Amino acid sequence: MTENRAFLRGHWDEDALVKDADQLLSELFPICRSITGEGVRKTLNRLGELSPLQMHSVPTGTGCYDWTIPDEWNISDAYIALEDGTRIVDFQSSNIHVVSYSEPIDRLLSWEELAPHLYTLPAMPEAIPYRTSYYQRSWGFCLSHRQWLAMDRSCLYRVRIDSTIRPGVLNYAEATVEGTSGSTFLISTYCCHPSLANDNLSGQVLWSLLLRELRRAPTRHTYRFVNVPETIGAIAFLSRNEAAMQEVDGCLVLTTVAGPGQWGVKRTFKGDHLLDRIVTQAFRARSVTPLDYPFDVFGSDEAQYSMPFFRIPCCTITKDKYYEYDEYHTSLDNLEFVNPLALVQSLDIYLDVIERLEMNTSYIGTELHCQPMLGRRGLYPNLGGAVRQRPAKGHQGDGYDLDAGHRLQSRTLDAMFWTLFWADGTATLLDIEEQTGIPMAALHSAATTLVQAGLLTKAEAK
Amino acid sequence: MTENRAFLRGHWDEDALVKDADQLLSELFPICRSITGEGVRKTLNRLGELSPLQMHSVPTGTGCYDWTIPDEWNISDAYIALEDGTRIVDFQSSNIHVVSYSEPIDRLLSWEELAPHLYTLPAMPEAIPYRTSYYQRSWGFCLSHRQWLAMDRSCLYRVRIDSTIRPGVLNYAEATVEGTSGSTFLISTYCCHPSLANDNLSGQVLWSLLLRELRRAPTRHTYRFVNVPETIGAIAFLSRNEAAMQEVDGCLVLTTVAGPGQWGVKRTFKGDHLLDRIVTQAFRARSVTPLDYPFDVFGSDEAQYSMPFFRIPCCTITKDKYYEYDEYHTSLDNLEFVNPLALVQSLDIYLDVIERLEMNTSYIGTELHCQPMLGRRGLYPNLGGAVRQRPAKGHQGDGYDLDAGHRLQSRTLDAMFWTLFWADGTATLLDIEEQTGIPMAALHSAATTLVQAGLLTKAEAK
Amino acid sequence: MTENRAFLRGHWDEDALVKDADQLLSELFPICRSITGEGVRKTLNRLGELSPLQMHSVPTGTGCYDWTIPDEWNISDAYIALEDGTRIVDFQSSNIHVVSYSEPIDRLLSWEELAPHLYTLPAMPEAIPYRTSYYQRSWGFCLSHRQWLAMDRSCLYRVRIDSTIRPGVLNYAEATVEGTSGSTFLISTYCCHPSLANDNLSGQVLWSLLLRELRRAPTRHTYRFVNVPETIGAIAFLSRNEAAMQEVDGCLVLTTVAGPGQWGVKRTFKGDHLLDRIVTQAFRARSVTPLDYPFDVFGSDEAQYSMPFFRIPCCTITKDKYYEYDEYHTSLDNLEFVNPLALVQSLDIYLDVIERLEMNTSYIGTELHCQPMLGRRGLYPNLGGAVRQRPAKGHQGDGYDLDAGHRLQSRTLDAMFWTLFWADGTATLLDIEEQTGIPMAALHSAATTLVQAGLLTKAEAK
Repeated sequence: MTENRAFLRGHWDEDALVKDADQLLSELFPICRSITGEGVRKTLNRLGELSPLQMHSVPTGTGCYDWTIPDEWNISDAYIALEDGTRIVDFQSSNIHVVSYSEPIDRLLSWEELAPHLYTLPAMPEAIPYRTSYYQRSWGFCLSHRQWLAMDRSCLYRVRIDSTIRPGVLNYAEATVEGTSGSTFLISTYCCHPSLANDNLSGQVLWSLLLRELRRAPTRHTYRFVNVPETIGAIAFLSRNEAAMQEVDGCLVLTTVAGPGQWGVKRTFKGDHLLDRIVTQAFRARSVTPLDYPFDVFGSDEAQYSMPFFRIPCCTITKDKYYEYDEYHTSLDNLEFVNPLALVQSLDIYLDVIERLEMNTSYIGTELHCQPMLGRRGLYPNLGGAVRQRPAKGHQGDGYDLDAGHRLQSRTLDAMFWTLFWADGTATLLDIEEQTGIPMAALHSAATTLVQAGLLTKAEAK
Repeated sequence: MTENRAFLRGHWDEDALVKDADQLLSELFPICRSITGEGVRKTLNRLGELSPLQMHSVPTGTGCYDWTIPDEWNISDAYIALEDGTRIVDFQSSNIHVVSYSEPIDRLLSWEELAPHLYTLPAMPEAIPYRTSYYQRSWGFCLSHRQWLAMDRSCLYRVRIDSTIRPGVLNYAEATVEGTSGSTFLISTYCCHPSLANDNLSGQVLWSLLLRELRRAPTRHTYRFVNVPETIGAIAFLSRNEAAMQEVDGCLVLTTVAGPGQWGVKRTFKGDHLLDRIVTQAFRARSVTPLDYPFDVFGSDEAQYSMPFFRIPCCTITKDKYYEYDEYHTSLDNLEFVNPLALVQSLDIYLDVIERLEMNTSYIGTELHCQPMLGRRGLYPNLGGAVRQRPAKGHQGDGYDLDAGHRLQSRTLDAMFWTLFWADGTATLLDIEEQTGIPMAALHSAATTLVQAGLLTKAEAK
Repeated sequence: MTENRAFLRGHWDEDALVKDADQLLSELFPICRSITGEGVRKTLNRLGELSPLQMHSVPTGTGCYDWTIPDEWNISDAYIALEDGTRIVDFQSSNIHVVSYSEPIDRLLSWEELAPHLYTLPAMPEAIPYRTSYYQRSWGFCLSHRQWLAMDRSCLYRVRIDSTIRPGVLNYAEATVEGTSGSTFLISTYCCHPSLANDNLSGQVLWSLLLRELRRAPTRHTYRFVNVPETIGAIAFLSRNEAAMQEVDGCLVLTTVAGPGQWGVKRTFKGDHLLDRIVTQAFRARSVTPLDYPFDVFGSDEAQYSMPFFRIPCCTITKDKYYEYDEYHTSLDNLEFVNPLALVQSLDIYLDVIERLEMNTSYIGTELHCQPMLGRRGLYPNLGGAVRQRPAKGHQGDGYDLDAGHRLQSRTLDAMFWTLFWADGTATLLDIEEQTGIPMAALHSAATTLVQAGLLTKAEAK
């Protein structure tokens, strides 16, 4: 448990969190989700049991900027069978066998008729690819290349998809943790992928656990949580919250957080936004160097949030990042691929990021002419002349070495004097942490002591 | 032929251009030029045959800021001969044998009288140096050190220079390619050097060919071409075009472009001006790393154009750069040294620079709330979920790998989405190219497609 | 002697300076100084013999911002003796044996009673540590760990300190070298340490020699010299000169300048202030790379001067820096440790810094349209075309190589043309030195020539 952990968290029971993550991953993995339909509703309702959510339904056909909500898609069964009824590709065994938004079909087809509707990955012959066709009516099956090679080119196939594409609604869920600072951060994830574990069941689970954590204690800032179908859901959400979204200070897009590989950070379009800087510090505090992904217009919903009208800087912490792992968008992105402990470690980093947002403020000193006399307030050693240890690289000296065995916490003194030095309101604790290497939690603690001593007041700014 | 080449150029016939360059180099090399006189007039007239030029004559004695146009110098013959008439140093064999602006003389001199008027290069005993004495009346001969060593110190020499230094004019030539953007770029070269091929017959020939190319198609910006005697001609030109020159947006100084060595770039005094950035991209597109010369107050006419009153940022692309090659300002900078193919390759880079100036603008999107739905406009693949290839370093991913053998041009999609992302008018195509590595021509092409689709309008700015 | 040295200095007699430094170090080392008392007065009076000083006395009990001047401490004798009177720890042999500001005491004590008042350095068993207790009444002795180990734990000890802590004054000294530019620089050192040679007798001696040097010739800027007891003296000085100190342009804090190790630079809190840049150039001119210490809130009086109300950027050049050498704040920081020649070399660098402050200005040209014609003013060679030598890295070309053995000082021409190029008042000589590598003294010399030629006027700015 890091020094920061106790800040927002009344407790941090890693075992219990891992158990919760494991349970949610297992329960929600089999559900067939898409950008609309029963699967999304079922998923959002289950997540709402963890921490209450506000559910939204946008009627299909609604225009959202350049887009229109498509009809709702639902599916109960689908298969490719031999003429004797033997199912050789079966939706019941994996819902990604069917191209999402496939039209209903029930026909006997020759190989030549069927072949253009089959998708495989020759380079990964055991994996079923994941494909969609949201906006053009068609149908299709995805199967492993091994299966595809074994299919008899000369026989007829019974192809059946029991789906409906009809007017209905697009759903998304929301929850707000209200703060008082006037700053609002968006915490966004997406719920539209079927049985794919890291992308993005992991992000949804982390989103729910993070929401539950933040509700444990009052926060300074407001955190607006939203779980939407990717792209169309984000666009619908923006169009219904246009004014509020123009005021948002930043966004965390939660996705692909429980894989076996390295952590990664996709940067905001600014690259040096408050969120970029805080995420950098959170990893530095763990001595972890994440893979660095500069902002890209391809990705998840940051693509929408970052467009000119809103220009919300979005940051994403991943493990492993979508696009980057071989199992991405295949049947191999399954419960074997993800690890609930990794998910909870990602939660820990995200929570650290939020704690840093909470701590980050500037202060105004009551005495700005000189260093105040801390000694008469019991905050400085009375015996002078002792040798301050040579600071290590980056100013992280960790002790004043006194001859008689005294050992003062020089980090505490460093933190106090640096906070006083910047107590003209021009630097936040993040600025000071970046400049001096003193952990923000130590600066926060020093500032709190100095506020209590009447030497500082908090400069309440965004 | 690079992707850009077709932009301004109706055609690009390298062989024909090389032939033209070769012809001009051969014809113009033997002419004896100086800062005034017949040689300059003859050269400018010949270049005017390639593409029409406006000829200017400034009377000698005219004051131009701190300078005064000196009297006109012309020369018909000159030699050092033995008493029997045998010419041992002969203007007819090389016009750089005579110090430019030498006074007339016709005398029999002893070695002691002659010696102070002789210039050689002991370190390059075969080369004749090039020397001038524009502003102090004197006379002199330049000869190879080998010749000088062989001269008899005991005999008398007949020294004759048939020159005149009389009131007349200083000439320069001009041509303007008019655009509509309101931006003007100066394209400057100099015509005052006698039989020296790279410095600067090569620059003059490139200047003429570039002018001819730019006249083939309408341009967005205005390009003002000027060919002046170095220093005094540039100062005369500035003094006669003071208001216009204060409005110029940048300048390319053409010199030494046809040598056998490496390309080089002399930077503007700003170092990161639009021209510096565009030149960098033009070389990057060729995977060529030119020698980088920071701005220097010594050099060619950028020394005048960059002075405080005008502060025109000037950039120069060279091959090889004046000062830097051993043959510089000697008889070895001759037609053997230069290569018309190299000259045409330099022309190609300069033309690329100008095409980038032409393409570089910003755009305003008609939908700024979210990414527009390109799919319904036929600009995006309808089948989703396919794995985008991991982008290579610098964002230059080159494909979306689809299972069924489809292969979309991800560069096209990248170019479209990045152009849309910056469609708030705050970034130009150059900014986007620098940030993403997507070639400006691809961005220009994407922007053109999006303008046609009604999703962008051009932000006409300088 | 560097090129710059003659600028302010009528002469530079290194031998005489070393002799003076040696004499002052030897005379002043034995005196027992603290933040108040006779030792400070005696020291300041002796330094005043070198160059007259204005002496200040602030009554004890005076409030200075958050602090109060403590009572004056004086001491005549102190010892720990055996019952037979044999002194085993004796103030007469080293004044750092007594904790500074120890109360008077005269008692017979058991080992158990004495032990909590003894301070040693187990890691350096031969060294006596230096300790103070200015603001909490107590008493104590410092001794080598070797001595401490040898003390009999079973006998009684006679402990006597003949000290007084009574109302009196705090002293500091001041001197001002008046300039005309309107800029003021503070030159600060501290006088409160007892027999410690590098920290900070060396700084005080350098301060006195520097003051004497600056009084030899008129200066452009004002230099305000102050020698104060550390922290409390600096705070008292600030409180009594509040308005003037808000206008100060920068400060040099002189301390620890005569050790055997590497030079170091403690940077201003800005890091790139004028003083940081000039100090960098002064070391670059010597091809010395000093240890770089970023600004720290711990250190000397820059901690006070840099606080928000004053925000005076302070720079410190050290050899070796306080905190960083093993002998720091022990009896081993003695006359063996310091070297008067090192002190004079540090003086040389500081004087160079001040000469650069003096030279650093910008200029306005009388002809800004083009390069003026230097030839008709005898400032440019009349024979043109000669090959300028290829400039070495960093633009430090050092010659125009003419065939007939002429060798012009290209540095002079470079310096003239660069000064003219920036003669719109937007760049100072320091800016030009940083950009071109031409030494500031050469630029200053060129500018002086051009002012005499009527081509420049000095832009008198801070």
